[in-house]
Amino acid sequence: MRAVDVIQRKRNGEELSAEEISFFVDGYTRGDIPDYQASALTMAVYFRGMTSAETVALTGAMMRTGEVLDLSDLPGPKADKHSTGGVGDKTSLILAPLAAACGAYVPMISGRGLGHTGGTLDKLEAIPGFSVRLSLSEFRDVLRKAHLGLIGQTPEIAPADRKLYALRDVTATVESRALIAASIMSKKMAEGIDTLILDVKTGDGAFMTAFEDSKALAEAMVEIGRGMGKKVAALITDMSQPLGRTVGNALEIAECVETLKGRGPKDLESLSLELAAWMLFLGGVTPDLDQARGKVRDALSSGAGLRKLQEVIALQGGDPRVCDDPGLLPRARETVDLKAPSDGRVSRIGCRAVGHAAMLLGAGRETVDSRVDPGVGVVLHKKVGDLVIAGEPLMTLHVNDRRRLEEALAILGRAVELAPEAPASTPLIRMVLN
Amino acid sequence: MRAVDVIQRKRNGEELSAEEISFFVDGYTRGDIPDYQASALTMAVYFRGMTSAETVALTGAMMRTGEVLDLSDLPGPKADKHSTGGVGDKTSLILAPLAAACGAYVPMISGRGLGHTGGTLDKLEAIPGFSVRLSLSEFRDVLRKAHLGLIGQTPEIAPADRKLYALRDVTATVESRALIAASIMSKKMAEGIDTLILDVKTGDGAFMTAFEDSKALAEAMVEIGRGMGKKVAALITDMSQPLGRTVGNALEIAECVETLKGRGPKDLESLSLELAAWMLFLGGVTPDLDQARGKVRDALSSGAGLRKLQEVIALQGGDPRVCDDPGLLPRARETVDLKAPSDGRVSRIGCRAVGHAAMLLGAGRETVDSRVDPGVGVVLHKKVGDLVIAGEPLMTLHVNDRRRLEEALAILGRAVELAPEAPASTPLIRMVLN
Repeated sequence: MRAVDVIQRKRNGEELSAEEISFFVDGYTRGDIPDYQASALTMAVYFRGMTSAETVALTGAMMRTGEVLDLSDLPGPKADKHSTGGVGDKTSLILAPLAAACGAYVPMISGRGLGHTGGTLDKLEAIPGFSVRLSLSEFRDVLRKAHLGLIGQTPEIAPADRKLYALRDVTATVESRALIAASIMSKKMAEGIDTLILDVKTGDGAFMTAFEDSKALAEAMVEIGRGMGKKVAALITDMSQPLGRTVGNALEIAECVETLKGRGPKDLESLSLELAAWMLFLGGVTPDLDQARGKVRDALSSGAGLRKLQEVIALQGGDPRVCDDPGLLPRARETVDLKAPSDGRVSRIGCRAVGHAAMLLGAGRETVDSRVDPGVGVVLHKKVGDLVIAGEPLMTLHVNDRRRLEEALAILGRAVELAPEAPASTPLIRMVLN
Repeated sequence: MRAVDVIQRKRNGEELSAEEISFFVDGYTRGDIPDYQASALTMAVYFRGMTSAETVALTGAMMRTGEVLDLSDLPGPKADKHSTGGVGDKTSLILAPLAAACGAYVPMISGRGLGHTGGTLDKLEAIPGFSVRLSLSEFRDVLRKAHLGLIGQTPEIAPADRKLYALRDVTATVESRALIAASIMSKKMAEGIDTLILDVKTGDGAFMTAFEDSKALAEAMVEIGRGMGKKVAALITDMSQPLGRTVGNALEIAECVETLKGRGPKDLESLSLELAAWMLFLGGVTPDLDQARGKVRDALSSGAGLRKLQEVIALQGGDPRVCDDPGLLPRARETVDLKAPSDGRVSRIGCRAVGHAAMLLGAGRETVDSRVDPGVGVVLHKKVGDLVIAGEPLMTLHVNDRRRLEEALAILGRAVELAPEAPASTPLIRMVLN
């Protein structure tokens, strides 16, 4: 088999066999197939797409270039959630403890934020002492004890994906649905889970802004997961405004704690509970979704979810007292309010703009090498549809470094639109793919 | 400017500017832009194509990475011909001396054969002593003296094209019309010519077998040449059977000499004369094409063309006596006839198959590293439409190495089809683009 022939067949629109895909992925990962052939293939895939069978084969091949956790010794369903990322998207830290408290094992391997989007790892690292860098055997121990572990990507997981993603980034082949789906799924499937709920975001603050694109990506990932014999479903959820009221790492941790105490924003609470319920239902913890919803709500109101979060924080080296005293979390030196210029109803909050402004304050990364400041960010006092009076604070910026404050304020000032009437409300869950 | 942005713009179907194209070509040639970005761009070009302005810019950028001959001190039109290659395609060695004898300067830089197609350099090297490896300054001297020089590609000519072609070869991006056209034209335009006649072959033995593909390639090359301010036209000519009666290097040289003596096969003679006439007409040697045809015919019948060939052979170190005594050319040790299995009319001669069989005998290259045997090849006694009697020789194979003789004979046996009636004849010149 020759790499050039595989490229040519894909270029011509033919379907690659699982053998051809494995040959290419393995050869590329070992270095036998050079970057220039891999980039030609990915560009051909950009134009030709991949069939469902091809994406399943690609996902499996990339997954098998690294370690695949075998959690079959754990007596219960192994379930995870994956989100395509957004602004203020912090459901992981609520749903994972809830699902774990309800009996599922949640081996969650997460990523970092980039650009306007946040990342679970950055949020976790705002907890003093918390380590996301466990070895896979430490991870397994935590998981066994707490039913929950929260770590970052390790070099052992899907090295093909890491190498290929770096190449795609510099060859303009990131925006391929098949490659995006296979990249995400190759890492998730390596977690040793049997159940995955996908939260595919759509709207201005999402990776895929158009609903049809989000839906197609969701379908591709569900197909891959099922093709690999897993229980997978997807919710397509709104990211046209930030989720919850905080954007920024420590601010978001505090909001998660509040939500696990039953005092969180309604949108964040309801989506977190729904995703946790899907994990239990798909994992067979309950026979139907409604019972799963009830079980998750009980874990919230009983405080079992909060206790589970404290437990995992302690196991991973963090200070569990942050759940009682948010003052232990990093905090910015000063706050600056953005005030409403006039009366009205909030008709729009530019979601990407809020994420971008938070990044400028230091809450996110401009490039992969940027350092994140855990204490800074943006708190939203008003969401879409809320009534505001001129002079009321719309948002509060938590600031350590004033150098890009003016820029952030200008972006946020343009991001909020007021109108005489509230707009038609957008449902939080736009579609369920099951 | 960043290479990834240029790739992305082409991927998205946008038109690249001349600055972007120069940035990429120059950066790639210097090594600042890596192979993996160049292969991603070429694959994007494969799918998106290039506008006429883009191919002109690409050709110019590739040409300018190397030396561009300045022949403005030579007092007359500088004209060349380029053929896309075929089987028995030896017109260069007839038309170039004729056009030179009629007053044009012909600075011909040619290539080698590969696969079933032959190359002018291989044919020239069948002449004892003939050197195609002149330096550019030696080439210029020969050209000044004889109005004609015949050399191979030098490292100074369009290095970007050489580097890019090697990359395309291993990334399945050879078959891009824009890239093929720019590759050919970047080398031809570096010759310092003001006039170019293109002979774009079509049919079974051509690079582009389908007429529409040949036509589109011809159009693309004519557009590039004109976009660069040159006089360019194209003939689309038949390559559904070999041109003339010989395939193989020394055999073809002998046939060229015969043709310059007025005793050549009709198809070879008429195409060579027509192409030479176009060079004179486009170059302004004559005010119209008919006068150019008359002038070229006169150069043939007066023997001026043959004397010009002898002159350039002598200037480039070859033995000019081969024009008087073909016995001085390399000759194979034995000949083997392929005989007609039955009576009939030749209805088809598989052109690619004849080229392939000649290659198996050693007349051509299986890979770029193969060595060519100058003496071997195939002589066709019958062409399409000819009457044959069972047992008559259809072809004679000139053989040095019998190891692949059986295979060659089998291929040739299948290549010739006989029928009760002659097929409708295909015109040699299918279309003129002027």
